[in-house]
Amino acid sequence: MSTPEKLYEGKAKILYKTEDPDILLTVFKDDATAFNAQKRGSISGKGEMNCAISSYLFQELAASGIPNHFIDRPTATEMRVQALKIVPLEVVVRNIAAGSLCQQTGLTLGTILPYPLVEFYYKNDALGDPLLTRDRLLLLELATPDQIEQLQHLALRVNEMLSAFFQRCAINLVDFKLEFGLDRQQNLILADEISPDTCRLWDQTVNDPNRRILDKDRFRQDLGEVAAAYQLVLERVLTQVTTQGV
Amino acid sequence: MSTPEKLYEGKAKILYKTEDPDILLTVFKDDATAFNAQKRGSISGKGEMNCAISSYLFQELAASGIPNHFIDRPTATEMRVQALKIVPLEVVVRNIAAGSLCQQTGLTLGTILPYPLVEFYYKNDALGDPLLTRDRLLLLELATPDQIEQLQHLALRVNEMLSAFFQRCAINLVDFKLEFGLDRQQNLILADEISPDTCRLWDQTVNDPNRRILDKDRFRQDLGEVAAAYQLVLERVLTQVTTQGV
Repeated sequence: MSTPEKLYEGKAKILYKTEDPDILLTVFKDDATAFNAQKRGSISGKGEMNCAISSYLFQELAASGIPNHFIDRPTATEMRVQALKIVPLEVVVRNIAAGSLCQQTGLTLGTILPYPLVEFYYKNDALGDPLLTRDRLLLLELATPDQIEQLQHLALRVNEMLSAFFQRCAINLVDFKLEFGLDRQQNLILADEISPDTCRLWDQTVNDPNRRILDKDRFRQDLGEVAAAYQLVLERVLTQVTTQGV
Repeated sequence: MSTPEKLYEGKAKILYKTEDPDILLTVFKDDATAFNAQKRGSISGKGEMNCAISSYLFQELAASGIPNHFIDRPTATEMRVQALKIVPLEVVVRNIAAGSLCQQTGLTLGTILPYPLVEFYYKNDALGDPLLTRDRLLLLELATPDQIEQLQHLALRVNEMLSAFFQRCAINLVDFKLEFGLDRQQNLILADEISPDTCRLWDQTVNDPNRRILDKDRFRQDLGEVAAAYQLVLERVLTQVTTQGV
Protein backbone atom coordinates (compact mmCIF):
# COMPACT_ATOMS: atom_id res chain seq x y z
CA MET A 1 0.00 0.00 0.00
CA SER A 2 1.28 3.48 -0.86
CA THR A 3 1.81 6.09 1.87
CA PRO A 4 -1.63 7.52 2.59
CA GLU A 5 -2.21 11.23 2.01
CA LYS A 6 -2.72 13.20 5.23
CA LEU A 7 -5.91 15.24 4.94
CA TYR A 8 -5.85 16.95 8.31
CA GLU A 9 -3.98 16.70 11.59
CA GLY A 10 -5.98 17.75 14.62
CA LYS A 11 -5.16 17.88 18.32
CA ALA A 12 -6.00 14.24 19.02
CA LYS A 13 -6.37 12.59 15.61
CA ILE A 14 -4.92 12.47 12.11
CA LEU A 15 -7.18 11.97 9.12
CA TYR A 16 -5.86 10.20 6.01
CA LYS A 17 -7.33 9.62 2.57
CA THR A 18 -7.69 5.99 1.48
CA GLU A 19 -7.88 4.43 -1.98
CA ASP A 20 -11.66 4.70 -1.71
CA PRO A 21 -12.77 8.37 -1.93
CA ASP A 22 -15.78 7.58 0.29
CA ILE A 23 -13.64 6.23 3.13
CA LEU A 24 -11.14 8.02 5.39
CA LEU A 25 -8.76 6.61 7.97
CA THR A 26 -8.65 8.22 11.43
CA VAL A 27 -5.56 7.60 13.56
CA PHE A 28 -6.02 8.34 17.25
CA LYS A 29 -3.03 9.98 19.00
CA ASP A 30 -1.90 10.07 22.63
CA ASP A 31 -1.52 13.88 22.38
CA ALA A 32 -3.82 15.93 24.57
CA THR A 33 -4.54 19.65 24.49
CA ALA A 34 -6.85 21.86 26.52
CA PHE A 35 -7.92 25.50 26.78
CA ASN A 36 -7.75 26.01 23.00
CA ALA A 37 -4.33 24.28 22.82
CA GLN A 38 -2.71 26.55 25.43
CA LYS A 39 -2.10 23.45 27.55
CA ARG A 40 -0.40 20.52 25.82
CA GLY A 41 0.58 17.06 26.96
CA SER A 42 0.33 13.36 26.28
CA ILE A 43 -1.74 10.63 27.89
CA SER A 44 -0.10 7.22 27.54
CA GLY A 45 -2.34 4.79 25.64
CA LYS A 46 -5.06 7.39 25.04
CA GLY A 47 -5.09 6.88 21.27
CA GLU A 48 -5.82 3.18 21.62
CA MET A 49 -8.37 3.62 24.43
CA ASN A 50 -10.29 6.40 22.68
CA CYS A 51 -10.30 4.49 19.41
CA ALA A 52 -11.76 1.46 21.18
CA ILE A 53 -14.34 3.40 23.26
CA SER A 54 -15.46 5.40 20.22
CA SER A 55 -15.72 2.30 18.06
CA TYR A 56 -17.89 0.48 20.59
CA LEU A 57 -20.12 3.50 21.20
CA PHE A 58 -20.56 4.21 17.48
CA GLN A 59 -21.64 0.60 16.96
CA GLU A 60 -24.06 0.81 19.88
CA LEU A 61 -25.51 3.99 18.39
CA ALA A 62 -25.81 2.42 14.94
CA ALA A 63 -27.62 -0.55 16.51
CA SER A 64 -30.03 1.99 18.06
CA GLY A 65 -30.70 3.48 14.64
CA ILE A 66 -28.48 6.56 14.92
CA PRO A 67 -26.45 6.92 11.70
CA ASN A 68 -22.73 7.60 12.20
CA HIS A 69 -19.53 7.56 10.21
CA PHE A 70 -17.94 4.44 11.82
CA ILE A 71 -17.02 1.62 9.43
CA ASP A 72 -14.49 -0.54 11.29
CA ARG A 73 -11.34 -0.55 13.40
CA PRO A 74 -8.53 -2.13 11.33
CA THR A 75 -5.90 -1.67 14.05
CA ALA A 76 -5.94 -0.67 17.73
CA THR A 77 -5.52 3.07 17.03
CA GLU A 78 -7.16 3.29 13.59
CA MET A 79 -10.79 3.74 12.66
CA ARG A 80 -12.11 3.67 9.09
CA VAL A 81 -14.90 6.17 8.67
CA GLN A 82 -17.27 7.44 6.01
CA ALA A 83 -15.94 10.56 4.22
CA LEU A 84 -18.24 13.49 5.07
CA LYS A 85 -18.36 17.24 4.66
CA ILE A 86 -17.93 18.28 8.30
CA VAL A 87 -20.37 20.91 9.63
CA PRO A 88 -18.21 23.50 11.49
CA LEU A 89 -20.23 23.21 14.69
CA GLU A 90 -19.61 21.56 18.02
CA VAL A 91 -22.97 20.33 19.28
CA VAL A 92 -22.80 20.06 23.06
CA VAL A 93 -25.40 18.26 25.16
CA ARG A 94 -25.43 18.98 28.89
CA ASN A 95 -27.24 16.95 31.57
CA ILE A 96 -25.36 18.29 34.61
CA ALA A 97 -23.77 21.75 34.95
CA ALA A 98 -19.97 21.72 34.54
CA GLY A 99 -17.17 23.53 32.72
CA SER A 100 -17.89 26.70 30.77
CA LEU A 101 -21.62 26.53 31.57
CA CYS A 102 -20.77 27.09 35.25
CA GLN A 103 -18.16 29.75 34.49
CA GLN A 104 -20.53 31.69 32.23
CA THR A 105 -23.79 31.38 34.16
CA GLY A 106 -22.75 31.03 37.80
CA LEU A 107 -24.60 27.69 38.04
CA THR A 108 -23.02 25.45 40.69
CA LEU A 109 -20.90 22.56 39.43
CA GLY A 110 -22.99 19.40 39.55
CA THR A 111 -26.41 21.06 39.28
CA ILE A 112 -28.70 18.57 37.58
CA LEU A 113 -30.36 20.47 34.71
CA PRO A 114 -34.18 20.29 34.52
CA TYR A 115 -33.85 19.16 30.88
CA PRO A 116 -30.86 18.38 28.62
CA LEU A 117 -29.37 21.54 27.12
CA VAL A 118 -28.29 21.38 23.47
CA GLU A 119 -25.77 24.11 22.66
CA PHE A 120 -23.92 25.04 19.50
CA TYR A 121 -20.33 26.27 19.38
CA TYR A 122 -18.53 27.59 16.33
CA LYS A 123 -15.76 25.09 15.50
CA ASN A 124 -13.14 27.76 14.89
CA ASP A 125 -9.82 27.65 16.75
CA ALA A 126 -8.86 31.22 15.78
CA LEU A 127 -12.03 32.51 17.48
CA GLY A 128 -11.69 30.11 20.44
CA ASP A 129 -14.74 27.97 19.59
CA PRO A 130 -17.30 30.55 20.79
CA LEU A 131 -20.83 29.74 21.97
CA LEU A 132 -23.39 30.58 19.28
CA THR A 133 -26.89 31.83 19.72
CA ARG A 134 -29.40 30.53 17.18
CA ASP A 135 -29.38 33.95 15.46
CA ARG A 136 -25.58 34.02 15.17
CA LEU A 137 -25.59 30.46 13.82
CA LEU A 138 -28.10 31.47 11.13
CA LEU A 139 -26.31 34.77 10.43
CA LEU A 140 -23.03 32.93 9.81
CA GLU A 141 -24.95 30.44 7.62
CA LEU A 142 -23.36 27.53 9.49
CA ALA A 143 -26.61 25.57 9.24
CA THR A 144 -30.13 26.06 7.95
CA PRO A 145 -33.11 26.26 10.37
CA ASP A 146 -34.05 22.74 9.24
CA GLN A 147 -30.51 21.44 9.91
CA ILE A 148 -30.50 23.08 13.37
CA GLU A 149 -33.71 21.24 14.19
CA GLN A 150 -32.27 17.95 12.90
CA LEU A 151 -29.03 18.46 14.85
CA GLN A 152 -30.96 19.14 18.06
CA HIS A 153 -33.13 16.08 17.49
CA LEU A 154 -30.13 13.82 16.72
CA ALA A 155 -28.14 15.19 19.67
CA LEU A 156 -31.01 14.47 22.06
CA ARG A 157 -31.39 10.93 20.68
CA VAL A 158 -27.65 10.33 21.12
CA ASN A 159 -27.97 11.69 24.66
CA GLU A 160 -30.84 9.36 25.49
CA MET A 161 -28.99 6.31 24.21
CA LEU A 162 -25.59 7.22 25.70
CA SER A 163 -27.02 8.32 29.06
CA ALA A 164 -28.76 4.97 29.42
CA PHE A 165 -25.62 3.11 28.31
CA PHE A 166 -23.34 4.92 30.76
CA GLN A 167 -25.95 4.52 33.50
CA ARG A 168 -25.47 0.75 33.09
CA CYS A 169 -21.71 1.42 33.45
CA ALA A 170 -22.38 3.24 36.78
CA ILE A 171 -21.16 6.43 35.10
CA ASN A 172 -22.98 9.77 34.87
CA LEU A 173 -22.87 11.31 31.41
CA VAL A 174 -22.45 14.94 32.53
CA ASP A 175 -22.06 16.49 29.08
CA PHE A 176 -20.49 15.72 25.71
CA LYS A 177 -19.56 17.24 22.37
CA LEU A 178 -20.67 15.88 19.02
CA GLU A 179 -19.66 16.75 15.48
CA PHE A 180 -21.68 16.01 12.40
CA GLY A 181 -21.02 15.84 8.68
CA LEU A 182 -23.08 15.77 5.53
CA ASP A 183 -23.00 12.80 3.16
CA ARG A 184 -23.45 13.12 -0.62
CA GLN A 185 -27.23 13.11 -0.15
CA GLN A 186 -26.96 15.95 2.42
CA ASN A 187 -27.95 13.68 5.29
CA LEU A 188 -26.53 14.69 8.67
CA ILE A 189 -24.32 11.88 9.96
CA LEU A 190 -22.69 11.72 13.40
CA ALA A 191 -18.90 11.92 13.05
CA ASP A 192 -15.67 12.61 15.03
CA GLU A 193 -15.29 10.52 18.22
CA ILE A 194 -17.11 9.79 21.48
CA SER A 195 -14.58 9.29 24.24
CA PRO A 196 -13.34 10.67 27.59
CA ASP A 197 -11.75 13.43 25.46
CA THR A 198 -15.19 14.62 24.33
CA CYS A 199 -17.47 13.58 27.22
CA ARG A 200 -17.54 14.52 30.90
CA LEU A 201 -17.99 11.22 32.77
CA TRP A 202 -18.40 10.93 36.53
CA ASP A 203 -18.01 7.61 38.35
CA GLN A 204 -21.26 6.98 40.29
CA THR A 205 -19.41 4.70 42.73
CA VAL A 206 -17.18 7.53 44.00
CA ASN A 207 -18.38 10.56 45.97
CA ASP A 208 -15.24 12.72 45.99
CA PRO A 209 -15.83 15.44 43.34
CA ASN A 210 -12.25 15.15 42.00
CA ARG A 211 -11.76 11.41 42.26
CA ARG A 212 -15.03 10.65 40.46
CA ILE A 213 -13.84 12.41 37.26
CA LEU A 214 -13.11 9.90 34.46
CA ASP A 215 -12.46 12.26 31.56
CA LYS A 216 -10.18 14.94 30.11
CA ASP A 217 -10.92 17.22 33.08
CA ARG A 218 -8.28 15.12 34.92
CA PHE A 219 -5.77 16.45 32.36
CA ARG A 220 -7.21 20.00 32.25
CA GLN A 221 -7.15 20.30 36.04
CA ASP A 222 -3.90 18.34 36.64
CA LEU A 223 -5.71 15.76 38.78
CA GLY A 224 -3.36 12.92 37.84
CA GLU A 225 -4.16 9.29 36.94
CA VAL A 226 -5.54 10.37 33.58
CA ALA A 227 -4.75 7.16 31.70
CA ALA A 228 -6.15 5.05 34.56
CA ALA A 229 -9.45 6.92 34.35
CA TYR A 230 -9.69 6.36 30.58
CA GLN A 231 -8.84 2.68 31.14
CA LEU A 232 -11.65 2.38 33.69
CA VAL A 233 -14.12 3.88 31.20
CA LEU A 234 -12.98 1.42 28.53
CA GLU A 235 -13.37 -1.53 30.92
CA ARG A 236 -16.85 -0.47 31.98
CA VAL A 237 -17.90 0.13 28.36
CA LEU A 238 -16.63 -3.36 27.45
CA THR A 239 -18.85 -4.97 30.09
CA GLN A 240 -21.92 -3.37 28.52
CA VAL A 241 -21.41 -3.57 24.77
CA THR A 242 -24.08 -5.57 23.04
CA THR A 243 -22.62 -5.27 19.54
CA GLN A 244 -20.04 -7.60 18.09
CA GLY A 245 -16.47 -7.70 16.79
CA VAL A 246 -14.61 -4.42 16.38
CA MET B 1 -34.06 68.52 51.83
CA SER B 2 -32.29 65.77 53.74
CA THR B 3 -29.26 63.99 52.26
CA PRO B 4 -30.67 61.42 49.86
CA GLU B 5 -29.95 57.75 50.46
CA LYS B 6 -27.63 56.20 47.90
CA LEU B 7 -29.23 53.05 46.49
CA TYR B 8 -26.51 51.98 44.10
CA GLU B 9 -23.34 53.38 42.58
CA GLY B 10 -22.50 52.07 39.14
CA LYS B 11 -19.68 52.79 36.74
CA ALA B 12 -21.27 55.85 35.17
CA LYS B 13 -24.23 56.73 37.41
CA ILE B 14 -25.33 56.93 41.03
CA LEU B 15 -28.90 56.06 41.98
CA TYR B 16 -30.53 57.76 44.99
CA LYS B 17 -33.83 57.24 46.75
CA THR B 18 -36.16 60.24 46.90
CA GLU B 19 -38.96 61.10 49.33
CA ASP B 20 -41.35 59.42 46.89
CA PRO B 21 -40.82 55.60 46.89
CA ASP B 22 -41.91 55.45 43.24
CA ILE B 23 -39.25 57.91 42.09
CA LEU B 24 -35.45 57.57 42.02
CA LEU B 25 -32.79 60.16 41.21
CA THR B 26 -30.03 59.22 38.77
CA VAL B 27 -26.84 61.30 38.84
CA PHE B 28 -24.67 60.95 35.74
CA LYS B 29 -20.89 60.87 36.37
CA ASP B 30 -17.91 61.74 34.19
CA ASP B 31 -16.29 58.40 35.13
CA ALA B 32 -15.80 55.95 32.32
CA THR B 33 -14.87 52.28 32.45
CA ALA B 34 -14.40 49.65 29.78
CA PHE B 35 -13.57 45.95 29.42
CA ASN B 36 -15.50 45.00 32.58
CA ALA B 37 -13.89 47.91 34.53
CA GLN B 38 -10.31 46.83 33.72
CA LYS B 39 -9.84 50.20 32.00
CA ARG B 40 -10.82 53.30 33.99
CA GLY B 41 -10.84 56.99 33.21
CA SER B 42 -12.86 60.16 33.10
CA ILE B 43 -14.44 62.06 30.20
CA SER B 44 -14.85 65.74 30.99
CA GLY B 45 -18.50 66.82 30.82
CA LYS B 46 -19.74 63.29 30.04
CA GLY B 47 -22.21 63.23 32.93
CA GLU B 48 -23.97 66.34 31.71
CA MET B 49 -23.91 65.33 28.03
CA ASN B 50 -25.18 61.79 28.63
CA CYS B 51 -27.90 63.08 30.97
CA ALA B 52 -29.06 65.51 28.27
CA ILE B 53 -28.86 63.02 25.37
CA SER B 54 -30.66 60.32 27.38
CA SER B 55 -33.35 62.75 28.51
CA TYR B 56 -34.08 63.92 24.97
CA LEU B 57 -34.10 60.37 23.57
CA PHE B 58 -36.34 59.02 26.34
CA GLN B 59 -38.83 61.81 25.61
CA GLU B 60 -38.72 61.08 21.89
CA LEU B 61 -39.34 57.41 22.65
CA ALA B 62 -42.23 58.22 24.97
CA ALA B 63 -43.74 60.43 22.25
CA SER B 64 -43.49 57.40 19.92
CA GLY B 65 -45.41 55.31 22.44
CA ILE B 66 -42.49 53.42 23.96
CA PRO B 67 -42.84 53.44 27.76
CA ASN B 68 -39.68 54.35 29.67
CA HIS B 69 -38.63 55.37 33.16
CA PHE B 70 -37.80 59.06 32.41
CA ILE B 71 -39.69 61.66 34.47
CA ASP B 72 -37.67 64.88 34.20
CA ARG B 73 -34.21 66.43 34.41
CA PRO B 74 -34.09 68.68 37.50
CA THR B 75 -30.42 69.68 36.99
CA ALA B 76 -27.87 69.25 34.21
CA THR B 77 -26.54 65.91 35.50
CA GLU B 78 -29.64 64.59 37.27
CA MET B 79 -32.55 62.61 35.92
CA ARG B 80 -35.62 61.68 37.93
CA VAL B 81 -36.86 58.24 36.95
CA GLN B 82 -39.60 55.78 37.82
CA ALA B 83 -38.51 53.22 40.44
CA LEU B 84 -38.47 49.77 38.80
CA LYS B 85 -37.31 46.26 39.56
CA ILE B 86 -34.42 45.99 37.10
CA VAL B 87 -34.30 42.83 34.94
CA PRO B 88 -30.67 41.59 35.12
CA LEU B 89 -30.28 41.50 31.33
CA GLU B 90 -28.52 43.69 28.84
CA VAL B 91 -30.61 43.67 25.67
CA VAL B 92 -28.34 44.50 22.75
CA VAL B 93 -29.61 45.41 19.28
CA ARG B 94 -27.13 45.26 16.41
CA ASN B 95 -27.59 46.77 12.94
CA ILE B 96 -23.95 46.71 11.85
CA ALA B 97 -21.26 44.24 13.00
CA ALA B 98 -18.87 45.70 15.58
CA GLY B 99 -17.29 44.91 18.94
CA SER B 100 -17.71 41.47 20.49
CA LEU B 101 -19.90 40.26 17.61
CA CYS B 102 -16.89 40.61 15.28
CA GLN B 103 -14.48 39.11 17.81
CA GLN B 104 -16.73 36.11 18.44
CA THR B 105 -17.97 35.36 14.93
CA GLY B 106 -15.20 36.60 12.63
CA LEU B 107 -17.67 38.95 10.87
CA THR B 108 -15.86 41.97 9.41
CA LEU B 109 -16.27 45.26 11.29
CA GLY B 110 -18.91 47.32 9.51
CA THR B 111 -20.81 44.43 7.91
CA ILE B 112 -24.42 45.54 7.55
CA LEU B 113 -26.53 42.79 9.09
CA PRO B 114 -29.37 41.40 6.95
CA TYR B 115 -31.77 42.09 9.85
CA PRO B 116 -31.34 43.63 13.32
CA LEU B 117 -29.94 41.14 15.81
CA VAL B 118 -31.42 41.20 19.34
CA GLU B 119 -29.07 39.61 21.85
CA PHE B 120 -29.28 39.05 25.59
CA TYR B 121 -26.36 39.32 27.98
CA TYR B 122 -26.40 38.42 31.66
CA LYS B 123 -25.94 41.67 33.61
CA ASN B 124 -23.42 40.19 36.02
CA ASP B 125 -20.01 41.86 36.51
CA ALA B 126 -18.53 38.86 38.34
CA LEU B 127 -19.22 36.67 35.30
CA GLY B 128 -18.16 39.38 32.82
CA ASP B 129 -21.67 40.02 31.38
CA PRO B 130 -21.71 36.82 29.26
CA LEU B 131 -23.80 36.33 26.12
CA LEU B 132 -26.87 34.19 26.83
CA THR B 133 -28.57 31.73 24.56
CA ARG B 134 -32.34 31.58 24.91
CA ASP B 135 -32.01 28.25 26.72
CA ARG B 136 -29.50 29.63 29.25
CA LEU B 137 -31.71 32.68 29.83
CA LEU B 138 -34.67 30.41 30.60
CA LEU B 139 -32.54 28.01 32.67
CA LEU B 140 -31.34 30.90 34.86
CA GLU B 141 -34.97 32.10 35.10
CA LEU B 142 -33.89 35.63 34.18
CA ALA B 143 -37.07 36.09 32.16
CA THR B 144 -40.12 34.08 31.14
CA PRO B 145 -40.67 33.08 27.49
CA ASP B 146 -43.39 35.73 27.34
CA GLN B 147 -41.04 38.39 28.73
CA ILE B 148 -38.32 37.39 26.24
CA GLU B 149 -40.80 37.93 23.41
CA GLN B 150 -41.86 41.30 24.84
CA LEU B 151 -38.23 42.37 25.31
CA GLN B 152 -37.40 41.44 21.71
CA HIS B 153 -40.45 43.31 20.45
CA LEU B 154 -39.69 46.41 22.54
CA ALA B 155 -36.01 46.37 21.60
CA LEU B 156 -36.87 46.23 17.89
CA ARG B 157 -39.35 49.10 18.26
CA VAL B 158 -36.72 51.18 20.07
CA ASN B 159 -34.29 50.32 17.27
CA GLU B 160 -36.73 51.43 14.58
CA MET B 161 -37.39 54.74 16.27
CA LEU B 162 -33.77 55.46 17.24
CA SER B 163 -32.33 54.37 13.89
CA ALA B 164 -34.65 56.78 12.10
CA PHE B 165 -33.86 59.54 14.60
CA PHE B 166 -30.08 59.13 14.28
CA GLN B 167 -30.44 58.86 10.50
CA ARG B 168 -31.83 62.41 10.58
CA CYS B 169 -28.72 63.35 12.63
CA ALA B 170 -26.49 61.87 9.86
CA ILE B 171 -25.39 59.22 12.35
CA ASN B 172 -25.49 55.45 11.90
CA LEU B 173 -26.86 53.60 14.91
CA VAL B 174 -24.47 50.63 14.77
CA ASP B 175 -25.63 48.89 17.94
CA PHE B 176 -26.85 49.71 21.44
CA LYS B 177 -27.58 48.24 24.84
CA LEU B 178 -30.89 48.58 26.65
CA GLU B 179 -31.96 47.71 30.15
CA PHE B 180 -35.50 47.15 31.29
CA GLY B 181 -37.33 47.05 34.60
CA LEU B 182 -40.68 45.85 35.87
CA ASP B 183 -43.20 48.26 37.38
CA ARG B 184 -45.64 47.27 40.13
CA GLN B 185 -48.02 45.86 37.51
CA GLN B 186 -45.18 43.73 36.04
CA ASN B 187 -45.06 45.82 32.86
CA LEU B 188 -41.65 45.93 31.17
CA ILE B 189 -40.43 49.54 31.08
CA LEU B 190 -37.30 50.79 29.31
CA ALA B 191 -34.78 52.05 31.88
CA ASP B 192 -31.08 52.94 32.32
CA GLU B 193 -29.71 55.45 29.76
CA ILE B 194 -29.33 55.86 25.99
CA SER B 195 -26.12 57.69 25.26
CA PRO B 196 -22.72 57.40 23.54
CA ASP B 197 -21.77 55.22 26.54
CA THR B 198 -24.40 52.63 25.55
CA CYS B 199 -24.68 53.07 21.75
CA ARG B 200 -22.17 52.71 18.93
CA LEU B 201 -22.66 55.79 16.74
CA TRP B 202 -20.83 56.42 13.47
CA ASP B 203 -20.78 59.84 11.80
CA GLN B 204 -22.15 59.41 8.26
CA THR B 205 -20.30 62.56 7.11
CA VAL B 206 -16.87 61.02 7.84
CA ASN B 207 -15.34 58.07 5.98
CA ASP B 208 -12.28 57.36 8.11
CA PRO B 209 -13.20 54.30 10.24
CA ASN B 210 -11.61 55.76 13.38
CA ARG B 211 -12.59 59.39 12.96
CA ARG B 212 -16.25 58.53 12.35
CA ILE B 213 -16.62 56.96 15.81
CA LEU B 214 -18.77 59.14 18.12
CA ASP B 215 -19.11 56.85 21.12
CA LYS B 216 -17.32 55.12 23.99
CA ASP B 217 -15.17 53.16 21.53
CA ARG B 218 -13.06 56.37 21.35
CA PHE B 219 -12.30 55.79 25.05
CA ARG B 220 -11.99 51.98 24.75
CA GLN B 221 -9.56 52.26 21.84
CA ASP B 222 -7.71 55.40 23.04
CA LEU B 223 -8.72 57.33 19.91
CA GLY B 224 -8.74 60.72 21.67
CA GLU B 225 -11.28 63.58 21.41
CA VAL B 226 -13.81 61.57 23.40
CA ALA B 227 -15.64 64.55 24.91
CA ALA B 228 -15.74 66.33 21.53
CA ALA B 229 -17.45 63.29 19.99
CA TYR B 230 -20.08 63.16 22.76
CA GLN B 231 -20.61 66.94 22.32
CA LEU B 232 -21.16 66.44 18.58
CA VAL B 233 -23.78 63.76 19.28
CA LEU B 234 -25.55 66.09 21.74
CA GLU B 235 -25.57 68.95 19.21
CA ARG B 236 -26.96 66.75 16.43
CA VAL B 237 -29.59 65.30 18.76
CA LEU B 238 -30.62 68.83 19.78
CA THR B 239 -31.24 69.81 16.15
CA GLN B 240 -33.69 66.92 15.76
CA VAL B 241 -35.66 66.77 19.00
CA THR B 242 -39.35 67.30 18.51
CA THR B 243 -40.29 67.11 22.18
CA GLN B 244 -40.26 70.06 24.55
CA GLY B 245 -38.53 71.38 27.65
CA VAL B 246 -36.19 69.02 29.49
